[in-house]
Amino acid sequence: MSDIDGRAVAKAIRADVAAAAAKLRAEGTAPTLAVVVPTDDEGTAWYVRSIKKAAEKEGVDCRIEQLDAPGKGEIIAKLQELSADPDVHGIICQTPLPEGVTLPEVGWYISPFKDIDGANSEGLGRLAQGRRTWAPATAAAVLELLKREDLELAGTRAVVVGRSTVVGKPAALLLLNESATVTVCHSRTKDLAAVCREADILVAAVGRAGMIGADFVKPGATVIDVGTNPTDDGGLVGDVDYAAVAPVAGRLTPVPGGVGPVTTALLLRHTVEAAELSKTHP
Amino acid sequence: MSDIDGRAVAKAIRADVAAAAAKLRAEGTAPTLAVVVPTDDEGTAWYVRSIKKAAEKEGVDCRIEQLDAPGKGEIIAKLQELSADPDVHGIICQTPLPEGVTLPEVGWYISPFKDIDGANSEGLGRLAQGRRTWAPATAAAVLELLKREDLELAGTRAVVVGRSTVVGKPAALLLLNESATVTVCHSRTKDLAAVCREADILVAAVGRAGMIGADFVKPGATVIDVGTNPTDDGGLVGDVDYAAVAPVAGRLTPVPGGVGPVTTALLLRHTVEAAELSKTHP
Repeated sequence: MSDIDGRAVAKAIRADVAAAAAKLRAEGTAPTLAVVVPTDDEGTAWYVRSIKKAAEKEGVDCRIEQLDAPGKGEIIAKLQELSADPDVHGIICQTPLPEGVTLPEVGWYISPFKDIDGANSEGLGRLAQGRRTWAPATAAAVLELLKREDLELAGTRAVVVGRSTVVGKPAALLLLNESATVTVCHSRTKDLAAVCREADILVAAVGRAGMIGADFVKPGATVIDVGTNPTDDGGLVGDVDYAAVAPVAGRLTPVPGGVGPVTTALLLRHTVEAAELSKTHP
Repeated sequence: MSDIDGRAVAKAIRADVAAAAAKLRAEGTAPTLAVVVPTDDEGTAWYVRSIKKAAEKEGVDCRIEQLDAPGKGEIIAKLQELSADPDVHGIICQTPLPEGVTLPEVGWYISPFKDIDGANSEGLGRLAQGRRTWAPATAAAVLELLKREDLELAGTRAVVVGRSTVVGKPAALLLLNESATVTVCHSRTKDLAAVCREADILVAAVGRAGMIGADFVKPGATVIDVGTNPTDDGGLVGDVDYAAVAPVAGRLTPVPGGVGPVTTALLLRHTVEAAELSKTHP
């Protein structure tokens, strides 16, 4: 088994981002990401600071727009304001959202030209149509990791466990666009382990620590672990039982150091792409 | 094996449409469907006339907007005009389109409030988000037929053969929203027959006459045949080899008389729903 090194992939992407950001700045545009934070959740605050730090290191400005116990209307108003602001190129609306508010209903107010984390239904629809768009960054990171491996995606069997709008469904659509034969599983799937064993490529995006055991994995399969489950001692573990699966899988992403850093790097790449787009589509 | 009777389902839907249309007319609104026809293809002309006849029988007005060898700009201008016309409630853009023009790029100009055949990326995105929307009518017909059978969809294995934007992908998303475990196959799928044999519910949407043989079908499976392939003698056959599959399948839709009439009935149902929506969202 070989680890898939997400940190190395992220480093390569971020080097490209830094070059593109420098070029944009030389042309008078400071690529800028705005992150709307509608929660005082500590984990979210930590994550948002890590995005800001990464962004600024590569020459991307990052505005954190902290909202204090906002209603739906305030979140929408902020997203509209940022969508109309010519100095902002990429917009993320962070979760968790206040009770009763869903990401699709507020995501609609992010301009499709700035929707670098695929929160607007327009982007998801374009993805389903096989058109150019920014997929949600975590789903895009799954594909980025797979495409950088020496793997043929067309014709392989891919199984995605999890059907969320931010990971499972867009990852499935991206894999389908690459001509994989794609199965989406979820909490209602019967005999989940047997379905997962059909996979040449297994994507785990359920949010349950270590639930993918050795019996879920076909020998030699490539396993992408999207899970980031906090442990009691302040660490992170994936959805895959790493120790059990490592002897069975052909390749496996670790947690941390797999999908996570690539997701952050792609948020930055999408932001510089949006900044480039703003020059022809102001 | 029992046939799934699409004509009976269509009749029931059309009775509901007629009642809703009569109520709308009594309230001063004549529910109206506009069909943009950018081709002089004979099969299309026949199909469009059959929609018009069905619509008018149930009290839905139908405007056929025939365009003569149009460019992309003319198609878009017509769709924008109809989107802005308060007397039009539902809009379909018929295919085939002129060479070099795709449905997603013109479908974007159909107002989401009138997009009763799911051509706008906004609608497909809402579908992927699990929100209320009008799916492309053929995909919606697949679900309508399944839901009217005494079948548990949650947890069953569904295989969709075909990944088009108008049938395969939206049918997969609809099945996923019903908690089926969904696999999407296509021309690059390896050992297609074996993958299809995993299906409790098999949806064939490839457009190749009779390609789904007995060896593609698990005994007792429910098979929905979306294919409408013209025969030399002016008839229609499905993607399923009916004679071969009938002894194996548990239930099977015939062609003609399966998905087709339900698709037409749903275009009308969607139109009256759009007319109802226009009263609160003029």
